[in-house]
Amino acid sequence: MSVLVVGSIALDSIKTPVHDHVDLLGGSASYAAVAASFFAPVRLVGIVGSDFPQEHLGYFQGRGVDLAGLQVAEGRTFRWSGEYHENFASRTTRSTDLGVFERFSPELPGTYRETPFVLLGNIGPGLQSQVLDQMGQREFVVADTMNLWIDIARDELLALLPRIDMLVLNDEEARQLTGEGNLVRAGRALMALGPAFVAVKKGEHGCLLFSKAGDYFTVGAYPLEEVHDPTGAGDSFVGALVGYLAAHAAGGVDFAALRRAVVHGTVVASFNVEAFSFDRLRAIDRAAIDRRYREFSAMSHYERIA
Amino acid sequence: MSVLVVGSIALDSIKTPVHDHVDLLGGSASYAAVAASFFAPVRLVGIVGSDFPQEHLGYFQGRGVDLAGLQVAEGRTFRWSGEYHENFASRTTRSTDLGVFERFSPELPGTYRETPFVLLGNIGPGLQSQVLDQMGQREFVVADTMNLWIDIARDELLALLPRIDMLVLNDEEARQLTGEGNLVRAGRALMALGPAFVAVKKGEHGCLLFSKAGDYFTVGAYPLEEVHDPTGAGDSFVGALVGYLAAHAAGGVDFAALRRAVVHGTVVASFNVEAFSFDRLRAIDRAAIDRRYREFSAMSHYERIA
Repeated sequence: MSVLVVGSIALDSIKTPVHDHVDLLGGSASYAAVAASFFAPVRLVGIVGSDFPQEHLGYFQGRGVDLAGLQVAEGRTFRWSGEYHENFASRTTRSTDLGVFERFSPELPGTYRETPFVLLGNIGPGLQSQVLDQMGQREFVVADTMNLWIDIARDELLALLPRIDMLVLNDEEARQLTGEGNLVRAGRALMALGPAFVAVKKGEHGCLLFSKAGDYFTVGAYPLEEVHDPTGAGDSFVGALVGYLAAHAAGGVDFAALRRAVVHGTVVASFNVEAFSFDRLRAIDRAAIDRRYREFSAMSHYERIA
Repeated sequence: MSVLVVGSIALDSIKTPVHDHVDLLGGSASYAAVAASFFAPVRLVGIVGSDFPQEHLGYFQGRGVDLAGLQVAEGRTFRWSGEYHENFASRTTRSTDLGVFERFSPELPGTYRETPFVLLGNIGPGLQSQVLDQMGQREFVVADTMNLWIDIARDELLALLPRIDMLVLNDEEARQLTGEGNLVRAGRALMALGPAFVAVKKGEHGCLLFSKAGDYFTVGAYPLEEVHDPTGAGDSFVGALVGYLAAHAAGGVDFAALRRAVVHGTVVASFNVEAFSFDRLRAIDRAAIDRRYREFSAMSHYERIA
C-alpha cells in the first residue's frame, strides 16, 4: 500500500564539532519520504523553490517517490542552518529562511486522495489538517510535531489530535504539551487528546510506545560508536515506521505490527545519523535494514521466565 | 550460592517536592543486601554506630542477611541528607555526617572469605580493594562506583578495575571516567581498564550492558507512573543483579545470564522507587518480582524477522 508524506523540503547548512556543510538536502518530508520508500511506494506533498537542484528530484524519483504533489514555486527553497554541540547533546538553529515555504498550501492531486497510510511530517498543524481535509477514506494517519508548534500553534495542534491515529514526538515535547513530567502519564494524557497510539522518542535512549488499550512497548536505540549528523533522525524514524506499516500491516494496524514498525524506524534512523544528509541512506537497501534489525533484535532480547 | 555485600549503611533524611522524612534506613549496602536477599543468602560487611536502631538489624536478619561481618562501633551511624527536585531529575546533597563510617575498615569473618559472588557496593575504591585483599577464590566480583570516587580516588579506582569481573556505573560517570562522550566507546574504554563486563545505568532510560567479547544488550526501565523516592535505585539494581547470578548462574556467568540478571535488577529497582526507604521492598517477595519480570518481558519483546 502507498504512503502519503507531507512536510518540509529544505536545503540545510550544518555545523558539527568537526564538519561544516552548506545546502545539503534536508527537510522533514525529504527524510520521511526516503525512509518510507525502503518499504512502500511514497507520494510526496511539499514545496520547493526554483533553485532546488534537479539532482535531488532525480534522487526522490529513483527511490520510487511520486512527485505529482510537489509544488515548484518561483523563489528560494526553504533553508535551515543549525549547529550541533559537543556529543550532539544539543542543537542551535543559526538561521531559518522560509523562502517559498512561507506560502505553502498543500494541494493533493486527485490520485493522492485515497492514500491508505498518511504521514503528516513535521510542519505546522494547520497545514497538517489541511491535508486531511482533502482526503477521503484512509487506513492510518500518523503525525509528527515539535516544540515550535506547541509554542505558537497549540490550538491547531489540539484540533488535529482527534483526527489522527498516532502522534510521534520527543520526550521534552510530550512533557511540554501535557504539563506531565512523568512520561507514562504524559503518554496517557496525549492519548486522551485523541490518538489511539503515541510514540515518545528519546534520542539515544530509544523510544516508548503507548496504546489507549493499555499496551506499552519500550526499545533502546541501536548502539552507534560514531554519530556524524543527527539531522533527520526523527523524520527518518517516523518515515520508516509508516512505510513499514504500509507494507506489512495493510490488513489492520495492531500493537504487534507497531512494535515491529518502531524497531524498523529505530534501525533506519540509526543508519541516517551515520553520515551527513542522505549519504548513508543512499548507500543502503531493504536487505541492509533487515540485517541490522536482526542484529538489533539479538541485542535487545532476553529470556522470558515461565 | 552466597553473596558478600560491602558498602555503606546509613540513616537518610530525604526531601522530595511532596515529602520530608528523617532518619530512614539507607546506604548502598543496605539496599544492595536486601535486594540480593530475594534471590540468595547474603553476607553483609559494613559499620553502624551505637545509635543504629535494633529494628533495622532485625529486618536484615529476617531477610536472611548474615550480620557476622557487621561492625557496631561507639558513635553515630553515617547520616546522609538529600533533596530531590521537580520530576526527580536532579538531587542535591544537603548534608553528610560520616560518623563511625569515617573509620570504617572492612574486616571479613573467616566464614566470608570464600564467598563465590561478591558485590563491592558504592564506597571508596580503597575499601573495595581491601575486601578483595582478604578473600580467597571467588566466582564473580561486581563493583559499583560513583562520581565522587572518580573525582577524589581515581587512582585507587583504576587499581581496582583489573581485579573485578564487572563494573556498574551511570552514564555520566562512564563519560567522566573515560572522557568518551559516546557510551558505546565509553563502555569499550572501561573494559580496556579491566572488567570483562560493564553495565551503564541510565536511570529512567534503562541500562546498557557490554562484554569484552563484543556482546551488547539494551533494556529500558520499567514504566512507572509514580516515583516517590529514587534513593537506593542503583544499589537495589546491582544487589538484585548479583543476587540473581548467585542463584541462577552458579555454574558460570555468561552473557545470557547477565541479561536476565540486568532485567531482574531493573525490576527490583522499579519496586524500590515506588515508596520511601524500604517500604516497598518490605512488601514484596520473589513471586512479585517474577510477576513483574514477566509483565516487563511482554513489554520489551518484539517479533524477530527471519
